[in-house]
Amino acid sequence: MRAYILTIGDEILIGQVTDTNATFMANALNEEGFEVVEHLSVADTREGIMSGLMRATEAADVVLVTGGLGPTKDDITKHVLADFCNTELVFHEESWKRLKKIYRTFGKKATKHHRVQCELPATATVLTNERGTAPGMWLELEGNIIVSMPGVPYEMRQLVRNEVIPRLLEFNGDDKRLRALTILTAGAGETTIAEQIEPVEDSLPEHMSLAYLPNLGTVRLRVTTRGTDEERMKAELEDVRVQIEDIIGDLVYGYGKGDLALAVQSRMQDKKLTLATAESCTGGSIAALITRHPGSSSHFMGSIVAYDNKVKNKVLGVPVNMIRKNGAVSEPVVKAMAEGARKKLGTDYAIATSGVAGPGGGTKDKPVGTIWIAVAGPEGTTARLLSSGKDRKRNIIYTVHQALDMLRRVLDGK
Amino acid sequence: MRAYILTIGDEILIGQVTDTNATFMANALNEEGFEVVEHLSVADTREGIMSGLMRATEAADVVLVTGGLGPTKDDITKHVLADFCNTELVFHEESWKRLKKIYRTFGKKATKHHRVQCELPATATVLTNERGTAPGMWLELEGNIIVSMPGVPYEMRQLVRNEVIPRLLEFNGDDKRLRALTILTAGAGETTIAEQIEPVEDSLPEHMSLAYLPNLGTVRLRVTTRGTDEERMKAELEDVRVQIEDIIGDLVYGYGKGDLALAVQSRMQDKKLTLATAESCTGGSIAALITRHPGSSSHFMGSIVAYDNKVKNKVLGVPVNMIRKNGAVSEPVVKAMAEGARKKLGTDYAIATSGVAGPGGGTKDKPVGTIWIAVAGPEGTTARLLSSGKDRKRNIIYTVHQALDMLRRVLDGK
Repeated sequence: MRAYILTIGDEILIGQVTDTNATFMANALNEEGFEVVEHLSVADTREGIMSGLMRATEAADVVLVTGGLGPTKDDITKHVLADFCNTELVFHEESWKRLKKIYRTFGKKATKHHRVQCELPATATVLTNERGTAPGMWLELEGNIIVSMPGVPYEMRQLVRNEVIPRLLEFNGDDKRLRALTILTAGAGETTIAEQIEPVEDSLPEHMSLAYLPNLGTVRLRVTTRGTDEERMKAELEDVRVQIEDIIGDLVYGYGKGDLALAVQSRMQDKKLTLATAESCTGGSIAALITRHPGSSSHFMGSIVAYDNKVKNKVLGVPVNMIRKNGAVSEPVVKAMAEGARKKLGTDYAIATSGVAGPGGGTKDKPVGTIWIAVAGPEGTTARLLSSGKDRKRNIIYTVHQALDMLRRVLDGK
Repeated sequence: MRAYILTIGDEILIGQVTDTNATFMANALNEEGFEVVEHLSVADTREGIMSGLMRATEAADVVLVTGGLGPTKDDITKHVLADFCNTELVFHEESWKRLKKIYRTFGKKATKHHRVQCELPATATVLTNERGTAPGMWLELEGNIIVSMPGVPYEMRQLVRNEVIPRLLEFNGDDKRLRALTILTAGAGETTIAEQIEPVEDSLPEHMSLAYLPNLGTVRLRVTTRGTDEERMKAELEDVRVQIEDIIGDLVYGYGKGDLALAVQSRMQDKKLTLATAESCTGGSIAALITRHPGSSSHFMGSIVAYDNKVKNKVLGVPVNMIRKNGAVSEPVVKAMAEGARKKLGTDYAIATSGVAGPGGGTKDKPVGTIWIAVAGPEGTTARLLSSGKDRKRNIIYTVHQALDMLRRVLDGK
């Protein structure tokens, strides 16, 4: 079953928001074996939406549409949808009752602005939006399924998970499916990996493929196969996985989804270890990535973001003379930061970072992109020097990945 | 001049990466007054790319293409591009020399994998990629301009800024342009704002429009106008701005681009004030957002991420008894955290957060989404209770916005 993702909104076209809804829907569809053929983002206009619906229904069996269902006046999606499906909008009493109840719960009153949200295409099956006021709609039209959802990510996600995917699985028969395996690596670039695993790639049969997804110090390798025999597809993927791991096993930190913070979390939880960070140039970004994950409080105790040198000295105990002599961006200081955090927060391990993230602050000896990272643990303290580029955000994220991977390797004994 | 964004890559279609390239290009085009008509993401296949190029060249004058120019085997974009433009690939000696030099600088040798990157469509103007090995290409075809760039965000951005936009501006004559103004607000929802500014919206002429872009506690209002007279368009936007600010001025924290961290930064820099954060449930995310901005070291001293209660006590000086009596998620504790950070880091102001981010940790009295925030400053310490939802990431980001806006209002005297 082929699926199409159609997102509506001028805010996407002008680049004011990134289309994370498309990513979420694509991922959810892909996990269930639906093939996503295209994403298209169109303007909030009748012509834009009509043209998008036409391309989508020609290219695929299922079209997931988001955006344009809010109470404000820039939203015309459902009028166009009704026209496209040769039907008209009717007032949906059940949705209005639900909406009024929601507003009462919040001590507010639903207004005429909200009432228009309950006018829905007559032939639509209404999908309850548990997290908001604009309902989802399921429309069937000459062999196509069109599902329209609000563009608010939090609401759309619940609808996709609880309403759309289960209904689509019911519809889907024994069609040819797509199965994929993702190998997560850190520590080498795309080209280096490609050269090392070239024999594996060259020996892949026609119906299998390999893609490289590099991201600032990490590369995900995605192996895909197509077919109808689940067991055979599984075996094919496992065979390629073993071949690749034989060659670049030290770079592999996991499979499927999950970032380096999650890889560290699972290892620390298994071994009942605790972690702290002492961050200068990363400014809290390592701690922020770690704590995005549920359950991180079991191993993560906290962080000292020592942006100013006084904080390095006063809270982490880095001697003023050491900073004066070597500069804050130096091996002794980053090691002392890691050791200071480990001691202050009483943890088994600590990660530290100190570098010139840019765009300012660079010198001839220590240009922008000069970054020290350190890991302190029961085995002692080690430090590494990174040479990154000139882009501030990129330097921060690259450092977050490298520092977490440094700890991951210590924990893996690699 | 109408522009089209075409991104190529299975990794986008399967939802493994979010298409931030489209956002960047859209934004860059929009800022220069080009109208972006659609974004389309297609598969890494000949059919996918061909079909995408056909739709794009029909819909717009300029097509910006990213992806599919790397050295690995899943990349076929330029072969299809050459066919689409009725030309063939030829070896580009200049690019090969450049590439070999880059590799020498890194002490490496360019290989046959890299050599194929220098085979380019014969009719293409080569755009130098200052940040990578795959060059950009500028192709003209029967009234259309097609620009192909690598999909690595960092490389694409440099090409768009330094090569593509300047060339497009040369091409663009006195066409009708699009001008927009964005009003940044925090502290009220989309519907509330829509009701308050309804008279302004109703009085907009046909060629102007207003869109609402809500994002977890913030709403951006985008006012757009079209025309050829720059002065008149400017005056129209200014007129609407004044009308809106008259009604919801207390919610407005800025104009154009920029998040709440940047709004706080500019205010603190103007007044030469310093800031620290004490973060529990936000886990360093406030510090991370603040330090993403260049120049943040002028006002931001650091953060204590006190994820564990021991850290709240030991580093921030929150009394053990206070935590025991009230729980960590409470008004006295969040105030003590803010005051502790302000004292420990010697700053003018400090922000603190303590809450149940979820999915675990909720109780009947303090369900998931119960979050306290506080601001401590020379005027004293104030705290606010937030009731957020059940989604962990959403709760964290919502809290980051609310806490920064709380400080912004203190600094604005609102």
